Amino acid sequence: MGKLNTTTIGPGWTKVVCPCCVSEWVEPLVLVKLREKVRPETKRWLIRLIGASQKDGGAGLLAHPGEDASGDIIVVSAPRCTLLRAAEELGLCKPYCSGDMEAFSYNDRDNFKDSDNMEVFLTLAERQYIVKYELDSLRAQRDLRIPGLSDSYMLQNRDNIWQKLGSAGVIVDTFPLHNPDQLKDLSKAWYLGNQLAQPLDSVNGYFGSSVAFYFSFLDFYTWSLLPPAILGLSITYFSGEVQKEVVESVSGSQVTNVEDDSGPAVSGHMIQAVFSMLWSTVVMEMWKRRSSSLSYRWGTLHLTERFAEPRPGFHGDLGVNPVTGRVEPLFPDWQRDLRMALVSVPVVGMFLGLVVLGMLCFYWGEAQVQQLHKDWDSLLSQALLYMPSVLHIIYTNMLATVYKTVAQSLTEYENHREQSVFEKHLTAKVLVFTFFNYFAVLFHIAFFKQDVPLLRKRLASLLIVTQLVNQVTEVVIPFLVDRFISAPHRIESEDDPQEDKFRNQSTLPAFPGLFAEYIELLVQFGYLSLFSCVYPLTAVLLLINNLTEIRSDAYKICKLFRKPFSPPAANMGVWQIAFEVLSFVSVVSNCWLLLLSPQLQEMCQEGGMSSTNILLLAVLLEHVLILVKVILAILIPDEPDWIRKKREHIEYRSMQALKQQKLNSDES
Amino acid sequence: MGKLNTTTIGPGWTKVVCPCCVSEWVEPLVLVKLREKVRPETKRWLIRLIGASQKDGGAGLLAHPGEDASGDIIVVSAPRCTLLRAAEELGLCKPYCSGDMEAFSYNDRDNFKDSDNMEVFLTLAERQYIVKYELDSLRAQRDLRIPGLSDSYMLQNRDNIWQKLGSAGVIVDTFPLHNPDQLKDLSKAWYLGNQLAQPLDSVNGYFGSSVAFYFSFLDFYTWSLLPPAILGLSITYFSGEVQKEVVESVSGSQVTNVEDDSGPAVSGHMIQAVFSMLWSTVVMEMWKRRSSSLSYRWGTLHLTERFAEPRPGFHGDLGVNPVTGRVEPLFPDWQRDLRMALVSVPVVGMFLGLVVLGMLCFYWGEAQVQQLHKDWDSLLSQALLYMPSVLHIIYTNMLATVYKTVAQSLTEYENHREQSVFEKHLTAKVLVFTFFNYFAVLFHIAFFKQDVPLLRKRLASLLIVTQLVNQVTEVVIPFLVDRFISAPHRIESEDDPQEDKFRNQSTLPAFPGLFAEYIELLVQFGYLSLFSCVYPLTAVLLLINNLTEIRSDAYKICKLFRKPFSPPAANMGVWQIAFEVLSFVSVVSNCWLLLLSPQLQEMCQEGGMSSTNILLLAVLLEHVLILVKVILAILIPDEPDWIRKKREHIEYRSMQALKQQKLNSDES
Repeated sequence: MGKLNTTTIGPGWTKVVCPCCVSEWVEPLVLVKLREKVRPETKRWLIRLIGASQKDGGAGLLAHPGEDASGDIIVVSAPRCTLLRAAEELGLCKPYCSGDMEAFSYNDRDNFKDSDNMEVFLTLAERQYIVKYELDSLRAQRDLRIPGLSDSYMLQNRDNIWQKLGSAGVIVDTFPLHNPDQLKDLSKAWYLGNQLAQPLDSVNGYFGSSVAFYFSFLDFYTWSLLPPAILGLSITYFSGEVQKEVVESVSGSQVTNVEDDSGPAVSGHMIQAVFSMLWSTVVMEMWKRRSSSLSYRWGTLHLTERFAEPRPGFHGDLGVNPVTGRVEPLFPDWQRDLRMALVSVPVVGMFLGLVVLGMLCFYWGEAQVQQLHKDWDSLLSQALLYMPSVLHIIYTNMLATVYKTVAQSLTEYENHREQSVFEKHLTAKVLVFTFFNYFAVLFHIAFFKQDVPLLRKRLASLLIVTQLVNQVTEVVIPFLVDRFISAPHRIESEDDPQEDKFRNQSTLPAFPGLFAEYIELLVQFGYLSLFSCVYPLTAVLLLINNLTEIRSDAYKICKLFRKPFSPPAANMGVWQIAFEVLSFVSVVSNCWLLLLSPQLQEMCQEGGMSSTNILLLAVLLEHVLILVKVILAILIPDEPDWIRKKREHIEYRSMQALKQQKLNSDES
Repeated sequence: MGKLNTTTIGPGWTKVVCPCCVSEWVEPLVLVKLREKVRPETKRWLIRLIGASQKDGGAGLLAHPGEDASGDIIVVSAPRCTLLRAAEELGLCKPYCSGDMEAFSYNDRDNFKDSDNMEVFLTLAERQYIVKYELDSLRAQRDLRIPGLSDSYMLQNRDNIWQKLGSAGVIVDTFPLHNPDQLKDLSKAWYLGNQLAQPLDSVNGYFGSSVAFYFSFLDFYTWSLLPPAILGLSITYFSGEVQKEVVESVSGSQVTNVEDDSGPAVSGHMIQAVFSMLWSTVVMEMWKRRSSSLSYRWGTLHLTERFAEPRPGFHGDLGVNPVTGRVEPLFPDWQRDLRMALVSVPVVGMFLGLVVLGMLCFYWGEAQVQQLHKDWDSLLSQALLYMPSVLHIIYTNMLATVYKTVAQSLTEYENHREQSVFEKHLTAKVLVFTFFNYFAVLFHIAFFKQDVPLLRKRLASLLIVTQLVNQVTEVVIPFLVDRFISAPHRIESEDDPQEDKFRNQSTLPAFPGLFAEYIELLVQFGYLSLFSCVYPLTAVLLLINNLTEIRSDAYKICKLFRKPFSPPAANMGVWQIAFEVLSFVSVVSNCWLLLLSPQLQEMCQEGGMSSTNILLLAVLLEHVLILVKVILAILIPDEPDWIRKKREHIEYRSMQALKQQKLNSDES
């Protein structure tokens, strides 16, 4: 441990307010990076603000100016009482003396296990998130000039201080600090060995529950790929298609050969398709159960964000919240609904239209250029052949960049009260667009061109190429950049002052969030469930990819990026819904593809069925499968029995307590 | 008021246990009818049991032996404390001093409005249900011989006394008593005038919330028939089909004429079909909102049946309930699930199979008989023509009767803990069967015979004939029986002793429950939504029928039957789901029928579309409509905003209270 770690409360750290929080050893949790030439009076004011008690409008935290009092960093930690009070506000559950998980209550702290040892009671991720939570909710208690800043940055009453300082450029960055020892242990258990299981509890402890939920899902999903992979392998093997398939799909040369496939392959494809359609529902339902037990175990089953203060960016007229009875900004729901219906939905629709337009232009351009090349057949016309693709890629990328900004502003404009709801709406917007962007071409091939061999070719190349490209751009490039460009500038030795190590962390790029990771899984899942029947080896390829993905993602988050803040989460949120929707759409697309398959068409014509009857049969199959999926989804309970009982027990106790409380308040 | 009503606590009524419940006037609530020659010692024992306090294993109620102490009735009433405690146990909400509805708490009773006047605080239906609830939950506290009964009726410890006495034949009946004055007022406001709105709050007060929910839904549904009725009328009018339709459908003679319908009629039918498909979702979503506000208003939003004692018929090994911590019989969920999966589902499936088998036999027999008649053409063969129909009707009725018994035993065997869950499963079983029974023939015509004109004929005759038959069997016959057979035996005059009036009520037939009423609405709704596009006047006919139905149902429940007990209910339960499922199935059936319509087929062939393309178009339309319906159902919130806020407020307060309570128990 470096020098700062062993600092006792004294000259370095600000003083704690309450006597019970005095401890010999203060753990640095969060680093606040200030503008390089920050005025000393601004920094002093900020440190005082962070250290002041919450009653006086401060954050109730501990701040340390670093070795050099005029330097550009502030190290922040949190005393016991602030941590515990925030844990109650967030609605975290912790082990009670009875052995059950119970929503933590500050007043009742002595009955919770380990509530005197913060490093055991709260995880590192929770402690760091609480620091961020307290800093984010700093609000000016009256109009106020910030020392060392111009008057244009006057704070109005109830202004969010941290946001204001950010926009004034005083605070460049706020990020949690790595704990080198814990990180070393974690990476050993996670990706350095040959272990099959991930240390999910430690991941939750170190990186927080949102990250842990991603890795749990990745784990669960990867293992559940086993049955379709085995089925796909055996079907491919038994229909003697192994070599043919691989050669065809990768090279794409023998497309016309496909129609020579023998009869059994068709029924194999059908088994594969029906299996994967039912499989996806069962997997998602089982994941919901697993997710709720994880959430119980990690104490996030009863988060109370909706009862807490609104998120920093929320604005509205001051009023009394009808639920909690506190005075806070209120924003009517109907106005938000109106904004979503009249602004967000049309704008998102417009962008989706632009994607389709781009695709159509691409096809039109392609046709034109082909025609041109046929007519002229010169070097120039050959070069022109690449034009549509290049233009389309540029167009798509520009559109995606613009859309991300637009989605952000739209969601800001919708003015959601809770951070998680904000994230949900933002993710949903970007998700729909990205997914559309990925799948528009495939859907076009499947439903309009009705060209199964082309679809198969496209799918195989996407599966192999995209995964490779992803792994390279996500891991290899950051790794190389880190190793050869950034690392030489920050050679660390054991004797370096702790502060330099902190500074080094700030040179790492910020963690880009889990969106890209989740969308990758969703797109995979889309390939698998939507088009599985055309390419039975999909599950095998995905299984192989995911086994490496687990390790590379783990390496990435541990080593290549700054540690991210991660709010406590009870589930995967909007991603859960996206996967479920996809699993239903897959029935439609698979039935359609089965119908298109030339083998089936031939077979039926031999059997003397009219094309109308085949179509009717396919529609019937589709309806039956959807019905079965709905019934499966209803029959498999979303939470295990033992969780339901615990939840009902808590409901029962709160009901009793409410009645009791009324009586008490009556007596007093 | 009669003589009993004014009895003060004294020789007649048993003594109340607690001093606060002593009142000058005891209201007779429930009549217990005993076996005619009941032994006086048994009756005395029973009265003592009813009157004993709950601590001593009694019901804590008030009992009156009637004028003649050895007669065969016991009149039961309830003292204030028992009523209030039971109101808390049931989780009834009542107006709090703050003006909101709050879950009633006995300890906090003084803060609830009117909690000293039981006749205002609890509705008549609630008071009567509480009496039944207390009687039903009487359990033997030790092994015990019932005086005057043979030893074969020994009570074991924890045996349900009321059930045992029922099976021993001591108790013939338990039913709530009418309050003549209130009934007079209610019927005046309900069905005697020309009013358009029903006095739903009074219905809830007098008959209880399950009955009131039925009438509210009937009301809501009837008014929401207006838009499709207007649309149907105008479409029929503008396509100049009025006379043709009516003549055809009623007489069924000009079936072949149908194909002469002009073009606009087709598009009219399509508009009607699409409209009614979307309409049904909007109506059901709006009803959910209305239902939750009614439930708030009637104080049934937070019923706590699952936290109460299990229902009388529930059995299992004694153990500690993990939710409430009380000792009570427990039955593992997996065992119940197993019983449902391995016994109930196959048996129900078998019965559905028998319905189909019956239908197939009917068609086979019909064909045979027709052939026979063609060959022979004698009087005998003409008589034989009716044989299949007669046999089919007899078969169907026998099957239905057997099935009802089987469904009851199956549900008993499933051993549900709560009465409402029991009812739900029983209703669902009978519902599926009845619905299948009603619609099997129509589906057969629509999907296998693909004979739209026949379907139209069948539908029109069903709509008109069934409704007429229903009204006759449900109302006219009971009315006639009551008027000319029963009534002469029970001429009442003002001077009659109250007891004779009570006795007269017991001669009325028992209320058959709301199942028949709900299934009638569901079948109507099925005609309307499943097959609306073949017969656009459906909504008009239903509207007319329902306007009379409201009145006849009201008359029936007020006059023709004994008053029913009605447990507090928060919604329509399983019926809600049935209506919603139907509204989704309707999309499939309507799209199919549109596809079948000869006009469309012709039109498309003129337009040069192949039948495969028409089919594809229909499938596309179906998918789009289902998607729109799902989105509509998600977008329209299930409860109004103000209810959501109240509910969240209560959740917030219980959370706070739970934390507070832990602290208090810690301090003490």
